[in-house]
Amino acid sequence: MRTLTVAAPSHSYPIFIGENLLAKLAEHLAPHVGKKAAVITNTTVAPLYLQHIQTALTALDTEHFAVILPDGEAHKNIESLNRIYDELLRRHAERGTTLIALGGGVIGDTAGFAAATYQRGAPFVQIPTTLLSQVDSSVGGKTAVNHPLGKNMIGAFYQPQAVIADLTALATLPAREFSAGMAEVIKYALLGDAAFLAWLEDNIDAVMAQQPDALAHTVYHCCAMKAAIVAADETERGIRAHLNLGHTFGHAIEAQMGYGNWLHGEAVAAGMVLACRLSEQTGRLKAADTERAAALIRRAGLPDAPPRFPFEKWLSHMRHDKKVSGGTMRFVGLDRLGAANITPVEDPEILRRTLAPYL
Amino acid sequence: MRTLTVAAPSHSYPIFIGENLLAKLAEHLAPHVGKKAAVITNTTVAPLYLQHIQTALTALDTEHFAVILPDGEAHKNIESLNRIYDELLRRHAERGTTLIALGGGVIGDTAGFAAATYQRGAPFVQIPTTLLSQVDSSVGGKTAVNHPLGKNMIGAFYQPQAVIADLTALATLPAREFSAGMAEVIKYALLGDAAFLAWLEDNIDAVMAQQPDALAHTVYHCCAMKAAIVAADETERGIRAHLNLGHTFGHAIEAQMGYGNWLHGEAVAAGMVLACRLSEQTGRLKAADTERAAALIRRAGLPDAPPRFPFEKWLSHMRHDKKVSGGTMRFVGLDRLGAANITPVEDPEILRRTLAPYL
Repeated sequence: MRTLTVAAPSHSYPIFIGENLLAKLAEHLAPHVGKKAAVITNTTVAPLYLQHIQTALTALDTEHFAVILPDGEAHKNIESLNRIYDELLRRHAERGTTLIALGGGVIGDTAGFAAATYQRGAPFVQIPTTLLSQVDSSVGGKTAVNHPLGKNMIGAFYQPQAVIADLTALATLPAREFSAGMAEVIKYALLGDAAFLAWLEDNIDAVMAQQPDALAHTVYHCCAMKAAIVAADETERGIRAHLNLGHTFGHAIEAQMGYGNWLHGEAVAAGMVLACRLSEQTGRLKAADTERAAALIRRAGLPDAPPRFPFEKWLSHMRHDKKVSGGTMRFVGLDRLGAANITPVEDPEILRRTLAPYL
Repeated sequence: MRTLTVAAPSHSYPIFIGENLLAKLAEHLAPHVGKKAAVITNTTVAPLYLQHIQTALTALDTEHFAVILPDGEAHKNIESLNRIYDELLRRHAERGTTLIALGGGVIGDTAGFAAATYQRGAPFVQIPTTLLSQVDSSVGGKTAVNHPLGKNMIGAFYQPQAVIADLTALATLPAREFSAGMAEVIKYALLGDAAFLAWLEDNIDAVMAQQPDALAHTVYHCCAMKAAIVAADETERGIRAHLNLGHTFGHAIEAQMGYGNWLHGEAVAAGMVLACRLSEQTGRLKAADTERAAALIRRAGLPDAPPRFPFEKWLSHMRHDKKVSGGTMRFVGLDRLGAANITPVEDPEILRRTLAPYL
C-alpha cells in the first residue's frame, strides 16, 4: 500500500492506494468514524462492496445505515441530494456522523456535497471504486450536483477526511467505465507531465490489462499530481483550472446528449482532442501533437471525436461553463503536450473553426 | 456611520452601520460588485428598497437582475433555493457574479446558501433590513435553509464580502418584527455581557421607540459581540454555540407551530426563558434571575412562555438539533445572567421538569 497526503489549505488528509484495502477496511476507517456513520452508495456498487463497509463499521462498533441511490450521471441531481438529506434526518444523523461515499464520481460528488451541507458540514470519507474516481474526482474536495442547465453548477469545495482507493475493486469495473477513467489519466499526462505521457505511451497496454504494477503506478502518479495542484490552489483561482482540460467541450457533449449517454470520461476524451484543435487554431500546438494525443485516446478505447450537433448548441452549453468570466469564455489549451494554458475566447469564430469538422 | 471588521479565519470583511446608507449605496457596493449582480429579495421588501439597489448598480455600470421570493420563514426551503439557482442559470450568472441579499434573516440565510453553493461559491453582500438580521443573522456566515424535519439543517459556513446595515430601514419594520429582533439583542445581553444587560434594562424603552442613538448603540454593540465570537470560533467548535441560547427550545416551537406562525425571535424569546428554567433545574441559576430575564423579554413585547404541546413532541423536535452529539442533547444554559455554558442533558427527566408548567 502507498500513502499520499493532500495538504489542502483548509485541511490535510491521507490517500491510501493499494490492493485488497476493502477487505481490511477497519484500520483505515477507525480514525475517521465515531458513534454513527452513513454509507452513500448506488444499486450497482452495493451488492459488490457494501458488505465490506458494513463489516468494518460493525467491527468498530459504529452504528450505521446505507442510502442506496440509483446508478448513473442522470441521478447526480438535487433529487438524489434530497433523498440523502431525508434519510440522514429520518435516522437522526448528527453533525458528527461520518458520511462514507462508496462508488464512482457521481456518488463521491453527490455524497460529498451532502456532507458539505448537512448541518453546515459533516465529516466524510471517499471510497472510490472506479478508475475515474480513484485518479481524479475523489481527491481535492470538489463536490457538486448537476442542474438541468449545466453540469456541476451546484456545489462546494469540501475536503474529505481520507480517501481509500482499493485497486482490486477495479477488476469488477466494466471495460467501458475503465476506459472512461483512462480519459482523466491521459488528461494528467497532456496537461502537465511530458515524461508521464511518454511512460503512458509505452505502458498503456499493461494499464488497460490492469497489470498490478502499471495500474498502481498510474493511480499513484495521478493522485500525486492532483494533490500537488490542490495544495497550490484549493479553490481554483489559478492553476487548478488546468485540470479542466477537455471539460468545457466535454460538459457540452454530456449536456447535449443527455447526462449518462456519453460517459463523462468519453466526453472528456473527445473534448481533449477539441482542446488540442483549438490550440492549433490559436497557434500553439501542431497537428502532429493533436494526432499523438488522439492516438493515445483511441488506444484507451475512447472516442477521439465528438457527436455531431449544431454550433449554436455548443455555444449555448459552453456559456454556462464555470470558467466564463465577464462574458468571455475561457478554455484550457495546450502550449505543447505536457504544458497547459488558459485560452480566453472572445470571438466565437475560433470555436466555429475548431468545431467545423464535427458540425 | 460606524464600521466594524469581522476577522473570520476564512475571510475578513466590513460591517457598515448607519442611517440612510441605502440612499448612498454605490460607494459601499463598489468594491464588491463586478460586471454582473443578482439581487435576492422578497415581495415585502422589494417595493420598499429594491429601487435603491438598482439605482446604485446602474450607477456602477453593473448589469443586474432581481429574484423576488415570497416572504416568510415558510419559504426558507429547498424550493426557494431552486428558484434562485434556476434564475441564476437562466440569466447566465457567472462564478464571479455578486449575489446581494436584501431583506431579513430568511433572505440572508437563503441567498447566502445559494451564494455558497452556486458554481461552488459566488461572492455575496448582505443588506439586512430587519433588526434581527442587522444584529445577528447577517453577520458571521451562517447560511442555511430549513428541512421539513428540522430548522437550518441544510447549510454552509460562508462569509459575505460586506454587510451594510441601514438603521433607517427599520422604520418600515412592523412592530411585531422589531420585537422579534429584540429577542436576539436580549440574547447577547444574557449570554455574555452583564453590563450591556444593565444598559438595556435602563434604555429598552428608547430602543423600542427607535431613538437613533439608542438604536445605533444596540446594533453596533451586538455586531461587535458577534464579530468577536466569529473571529474566535468561525465554525462553531466551541464558544460560538453560546449564540444558540434559547434556540434549541425555540426551534422546537417553530417546528411544532409551523414555520412562520411563531416568528423566530418570538420562539427564541420563550426559548430563553426555558433555558433559564433549565439552568435552575441544573442548579446554576436562581428563579429571580429567570424573572429578570422574563421581565426584559416582556418589555420588548415578546412572549415569556411557549405554546402548550406534549412533551414527546418537544423531545422529537429537539433530537434533530445540530448540537446533539453522540445521542446526547446539549443546551446553552446560564451560570448567571451574562455568562453562558453548554449543558449536556442525558436524562430527559430534567427537560420534563423544565417544561412541566407548559405541557
